[in-house]
Amino acid sequence: MWYQQAAKEINVEMKLEAIKRQSVLTKPPGSLGQLEAVAVALASMQGAVKPVLKKPYIAIFAGDHGVANQGVSAFPQVVTGEMIRNFSAGGAAITVMAKQMNAGFSVLNMGTAYYVEPLEGVIDVSIKPGTDDFSQQPAMTPAETEACLQTGADFIDGLDCDIFIGGEMGIANTTSASALATVLLVQNADDLAGPGTGVSKDVVDHKAQVIAAAIDLHQPSAEQPVALLAALGGLEIAGLVGAYIRCAQRGLPILVDGFIATVAALIAVKINPSVRDWMLFGHSSAEPGHVKVLRQLEAKPILQLDMRLGEGSGAAVAYSVVQSALALHNQMASFADAGVSTGE
Amino acid sequence: MWYQQAAKEINVEMKLEAIKRQSVLTKPPGSLGQLEAVAVALASMQGAVKPVLKKPYIAIFAGDHGVANQGVSAFPQVVTGEMIRNFSAGGAAITVMAKQMNAGFSVLNMGTAYYVEPLEGVIDVSIKPGTDDFSQQPAMTPAETEACLQTGADFIDGLDCDIFIGGEMGIANTTSASALATVLLVQNADDLAGPGTGVSKDVVDHKAQVIAAAIDLHQPSAEQPVALLAALGGLEIAGLVGAYIRCAQRGLPILVDGFIATVAALIAVKINPSVRDWMLFGHSSAEPGHVKVLRQLEAKPILQLDMRLGEGSGAAVAYSVVQSALALHNQMASFADAGVSTGE
Repeated sequence: MWYQQAAKEINVEMKLEAIKRQSVLTKPPGSLGQLEAVAVALASMQGAVKPVLKKPYIAIFAGDHGVANQGVSAFPQVVTGEMIRNFSAGGAAITVMAKQMNAGFSVLNMGTAYYVEPLEGVIDVSIKPGTDDFSQQPAMTPAETEACLQTGADFIDGLDCDIFIGGEMGIANTTSASALATVLLVQNADDLAGPGTGVSKDVVDHKAQVIAAAIDLHQPSAEQPVALLAALGGLEIAGLVGAYIRCAQRGLPILVDGFIATVAALIAVKINPSVRDWMLFGHSSAEPGHVKVLRQLEAKPILQLDMRLGEGSGAAVAYSVVQSALALHNQMASFADAGVSTGE
Repeated sequence: MWYQQAAKEINVEMKLEAIKRQSVLTKPPGSLGQLEAVAVALASMQGAVKPVLKKPYIAIFAGDHGVANQGVSAFPQVVTGEMIRNFSAGGAAITVMAKQMNAGFSVLNMGTAYYVEPLEGVIDVSIKPGTDDFSQQPAMTPAETEACLQTGADFIDGLDCDIFIGGEMGIANTTSASALATVLLVQNADDLAGPGTGVSKDVVDHKAQVIAAAIDLHQPSAEQPVALLAALGGLEIAGLVGAYIRCAQRGLPILVDGFIATVAALIAVKINPSVRDWMLFGHSSAEPGHVKVLRQLEAKPILQLDMRLGEGSGAAVAYSVVQSALALHNQMASFADAGVSTGE
């Protein structure tokens, strides 16, 4: 399948050049901490000792979840469509950030339960009006799952940008992501279910029960990630997975957002491990499962601000820190150029 | 004394208005995490429900330390002056950041051991050519300490800006800051001495011994913070203390940087507790004492990137996150405006 084809190889020589450059800049070795690693990673992706980012792109993958019927979210399902309108009108967090970043921006409507009229900046790529309720049957058919993956990839093929942020919107999608993570990390549903947009402890417990029962029903395996997506995933989550894989195949750096996006990232890596090289991680969110999924990916997120909004918002806030990392890496003087003595 | 005069009062009414505004924006309540608290704090400082920052200012306070003679730093003392030249030439980390932020920028030369010629952007306010070696005698006289505090305050009086970042440069100044923190937190020197710019474990142990012996010699008290500064402080640290206090008296928000700047912030608060209201904290650094000093200030830093450079660099990187917090707070739509259903 297309999604198993290897990612573009990162440039190891440039990675070493960038590490060497960091070591001669006028600062104690390592004193820029994680900013150094970010700059070095981007050098290896761009194949340039001084990498530059000028064209960020943010795409929100939106879709509804049949499992919302099980009372797992703080918000009614109509909100998915309403938020798509809010994205189009520019009132949502991620649209504010996109404007601040001067980023390209689109919403992909992968399928909502309620009708959404044609809107500026929203691309209707509906597969079906939300997933089926995975507590009763698989969320998607194999064909629908493939269509979602392909939709994500096709979208990336059409982009002109130098870094990609994928966001998501979909009432009940933390339930889907927690279910996927439970299988991927081989843990108990209790360990991965969290408050999402802000449900009570009782609802979190109920979420965990719904997830555990669904895993019993479908018996999915972490080693069959596409079938896992079909059983417990979401249209928008599968779209993100396809997008991430194609980014890596094209050689486009990815700045991963929060819990749901990171679960999509882990599935992409499960399907195709070479994709991992192209991922930076924007933040660690307040959703308790996020840090576990990040650990599985050996990911070191840039921010820890207790955000839990999704939409790509945490990655978008992290983008300015990435730009600072590049400015420092590219513009600082060396000890030799500045005539500063080293400690040796 | 002037430095005991109360800070300007923050606007509690606007703080409540800003909290109310956050609660109606199109996101789950609290889902922007720490970004919400940053926006609310700035609303209370500016007395505006939609606070705006347009004129950041960065000043580096530079000074040498007599205790450098005790072999406590990875770099020779000549580097303080060399880095002042690097700041002037634009090659240092903080000057790269100042350019990226479009910030005003100055260096205050509070006194270096080696001659520094007149340089663009460097203000010579030398008190003396570095502090005396506090392992042998007080670092400064009472009069010199007062002069440093006044110099910091006078500098702030001349500024036209809406947020202040104070940086520091001075070989061996983590030793001075660790000594001050040891007294302020009533801990052992072992608990506060750290690698600074990158010394070995042996040198860290030596640093701790030098600090413990100096505390034995001077018997300073946390309850006499100005005398403590005189005994163990630095010209640049005392300058920062004076600057912070005057910022708060003027009603100018402060974005505090790393370990040394945070020790200066704690001394400012010890001298004048009303100053605390005007402080935001940019980051938690890799220097092990930093998190302890932050805790004493009940401070929640914005970033944790394992930086350990000083110069104001961590606060400068955090500034873009502060701008994101304000953009989100000021520009997002409300549930009512966007026609989005709430969970109630």
